[in-house]
Amino acid sequence: MTDSWSQSPFLRACRREPVEYTPIWLMRQAGRYLPEYRATRAQVSGFLELCQTPELACEVTLQPLRRFPLDAAILFSDILTVPHAMGMELDFRDGEGPVFAKPLRHARDLQSLREPDPEQELRYVLDAVRLIRRELAPTIPLIGFAGSPWTLACYMIEGRGSRDFQHAKSWLYSDPETLTILLDRLVRSLILYLRGQAKAGVQALMLFDTWGGTLTTPAYEQFSLGPMAQIIASLRASPECRDLPIILFSKGGTLWLREMAATGANVLGLDWTVELDRARDLLGDTVAIQGNLDPMALFGSPPLLQAEIRRILAANGGRPGHIFNLGHGITPQTPIAAVELLVETVHNWSA
Amino acid sequence: MTDSWSQSPFLRACRREPVEYTPIWLMRQAGRYLPEYRATRAQVSGFLELCQTPELACEVTLQPLRRFPLDAAILFSDILTVPHAMGMELDFRDGEGPVFAKPLRHARDLQSLREPDPEQELRYVLDAVRLIRRELAPTIPLIGFAGSPWTLACYMIEGRGSRDFQHAKSWLYSDPETLTILLDRLVRSLILYLRGQAKAGVQALMLFDTWGGTLTTPAYEQFSLGPMAQIIASLRASPECRDLPIILFSKGGTLWLREMAATGANVLGLDWTVELDRARDLLGDTVAIQGNLDPMALFGSPPLLQAEIRRILAANGGRPGHIFNLGHGITPQTPIAAVELLVETVHNWSA
Repeated sequence: MTDSWSQSPFLRACRREPVEYTPIWLMRQAGRYLPEYRATRAQVSGFLELCQTPELACEVTLQPLRRFPLDAAILFSDILTVPHAMGMELDFRDGEGPVFAKPLRHARDLQSLREPDPEQELRYVLDAVRLIRRELAPTIPLIGFAGSPWTLACYMIEGRGSRDFQHAKSWLYSDPETLTILLDRLVRSLILYLRGQAKAGVQALMLFDTWGGTLTTPAYEQFSLGPMAQIIASLRASPECRDLPIILFSKGGTLWLREMAATGANVLGLDWTVELDRARDLLGDTVAIQGNLDPMALFGSPPLLQAEIRRILAANGGRPGHIFNLGHGITPQTPIAAVELLVETVHNWSA
Repeated sequence: MTDSWSQSPFLRACRREPVEYTPIWLMRQAGRYLPEYRATRAQVSGFLELCQTPELACEVTLQPLRRFPLDAAILFSDILTVPHAMGMELDFRDGEGPVFAKPLRHARDLQSLREPDPEQELRYVLDAVRLIRRELAPTIPLIGFAGSPWTLACYMIEGRGSRDFQHAKSWLYSDPETLTILLDRLVRSLILYLRGQAKAGVQALMLFDTWGGTLTTPAYEQFSLGPMAQIIASLRASPECRDLPIILFSKGGTLWLREMAATGANVLGLDWTVELDRARDLLGDTVAIQGNLDPMALFGSPPLLQAEIRRILAANGGRPGHIFNLGHGITPQTPIAAVELLVETVHNWSA
């Protein structure tokens, strides 16, 4: 077993070492904008079945790497596999997104939640990791991931995506003790899950905090950042994770970058609202950054897409510790030619 | 004609003068959470008809003032009346929100847009203002408003609300010249409209930039803040607006507070993500601030709702120039008892 990926531009950038060119990968790079993804997806009846079949999860993980010279692969899975493994019935409805049939609405609803053993209830994910790691070029790092405790709690309480999170926030503002019990249980489950991914063979771990940015500053610190900091501290103390870079991404969280860096995360994901030079001024050289093209720029004209890329590279100013990415996941209608141009432009202009 | 409202706590706070207690009003305070609103709404077939009938618009404007000792009234209307008056067919579909039947998709679609004379195509709004000003207690200021050019352009191009604004941003990233022509036309229309509201009798003007926070920093400055700054500069030079406070609110725009203050707005609206002391540190004493309770805190327990209110008042630290409000509009399921407690608590604790 070699670690031929350890000098990859992606992992070097995570460690804030100099790189020959800025590495790039794309959130949700294995997804519906690719016809080959849609073809694989059509082989199974549901999205969950795609996640649960290691061969297919491996196949769709590798698909974008075959098309584009991306600098990292990301495990194809879904953040909601963890609540599902905790015992919540999950249904992916076409056009509607994921739905929990019985959302958590009372403290007593927590009683039936188990803390899953990743090698049991989430074995299909770890099998996918093992398979991907075998099939993927040894120079390409594989990123594992999980949703943040707060983001998962939002889905578990709402039952689905939401505009204002009325149910989840009703808990927060009326029964924070019960919310904390739920978050603690998620913290423990996610630590085991991420350690499982590390043991199975990923080279980096990312926490997706999609809904942290919907909170007030003190609520973010208590209910979103705090649980993520617990996870990071525990992973740091785990032998299998000690050397893995951890990427922390709170969408809409640019107000709180310094607090995010204080968790000990190695890399902060940035959405597209903040300029990289401003983020760097706030953060100093304590942490690497990842981002931050507006995914909608991929719908623009080639010269204006390139102008956005140039602006982002210029704002970073060649400092080590930048991983290019979108500021949020790539969307299903994205033209493939724009993704090609993006990857090529980032590599060429940063070299 | 007396200006008995000029020493009201609301207008004094807008001018950053000391007040005996912190004034409060609520975005969307005339709305579906009130049973009397729902009863009035049921008298007409469509939402637009409610806006277009001055007697009913006046009635719903006054309803929340009868229930709660609010410190300002806000004209009941909708930001989309302006694109409608520009010639776009508008339909409010129940459960779906407003829809433009023929969204703008090509440069040529701009040709049919007129710049409305507010005393003609928007006379129903100005008639409502005149009627409300007659019916409203003379001590209570009336706030007029409009959507920001960028926010209106988003709706006009998308045809409806959107999660990622693919169409509007495709324009931005492929044909910014045409987008600029549209924004310029909106700027001119909105200046006339807001001057019309001032002549008709409002005491303050607010710009709602609901979607500015979806932009990158340079795009926000060019396509959202820039057009708003043009409007503010023009209003400042108009005799009927010269003395009216202007409130600027970009939801999700807390990164850009200093740039917002540089427009010359008198008051900045803040969403709930930022602490008032942090906003004050950024802004100094150049501008008043309005906000910023999470609307979902109204679904919490009374003690925790009060704790949130106390936290916000404490973060402001008694400095002049604070108008209490929500960080976004009040939502339809909000319990009325929570609104009562909110208004009473703000008044009592700040006194």
